[in-house]
Amino acid sequence: MAPKSEIRRNEVAVEWRTPADAALVFIGVIRTPWASRSECPHYGVPDGPLCRIEVSEPWISALDGIEAFERLEVLYWLHESRRDLVRQSPGADGTTKGTFAIRSPVRPNPIGTSIVTLVSRPALNVRGFDCVDRFWT
Amino acid sequence: MAPKSEIRRNEVAVEWRTPADAALVFIGVIRTPWASRSECPHYGVPDGPLCRIEVSEPWISALDGIEAFERLEVLYWLHESRRDLVRQSPGADGTTKGTFAIRSPVRPNPIGTSIVTLVSRPALNVRGFDCVDRFWT
Repeated sequence: MAPKSEIRRNEVAVEWRTPADAALVFIGVIRTPWASRSECPHYGVPDGPLCRIEVSEPWISALDGIEAFERLEVLYWLHESRRDLVRQSPGADGTTKGTFAIRSPVRPNPIGTSIVTLVSRPALNVRGFDCVDRFWT
Repeated sequence: MAPKSEIRRNEVAVEWRTPADAALVFIGVIRTPWASRSECPHYGVPDGPLCRIEVSEPWISALDGIEAFERLEVLYWLHESRRDLVRQSPGADGTTKGTFAIRSPVRPNPIGTSIVTLVSRPALNVRGFDCVDRFWT
């Protein structure tokens, strides 16, 4: 989680305990051209830069048949996100909105979703991401 | 996870260890008319039955501003899913496809996604789910 000091004016944080309701297994990594959140575009576009989804064993054969689809829905873990904000100030101007009313990586369960365009296989090259490189490491 | 005996002909399971790469916190429950997977529709539709998203404290104020949107993207935990299948046979006919090439609740990280239509607030009444009641309990 990012340092508490990064909270903006009028943002509201809640007390945060280590969650344990369900556990995820990382099945690979996403390689994108962006090394930090500040470099990322706010939205992915279908003709955006080439990115790569690297799936690890034993899950590679779970991709069989995916080439039948032009677009893929991808969920990924936003590993740099703080998770304790209920109100956020996207413009850092003192006005805030509820966390679930904005498209922010900061949320209690920081899972991102993108619809990406499949470019080639077997290496899973796609376009349309807007996230930091190596989200799954 | 469902009993191992439920595997279908030619489906492929991998060795499964309790995952610990990231942890989720359940922020509420989804109430739908369907008590079991066999009753659920395969896809949600915008004019489907009324369902309710019950968000728990301290996350209720994170919904502020959500009434500006007609449609909401909801991610939810598919708590009844087994997680170890890399190939599945949706038709139970011996033919299989990779887990990531089909829309199945059985996947290593059983997270469902739906675009639902917001009907009313403050109780978050929506249409468009296709999932079992109380996924988050």
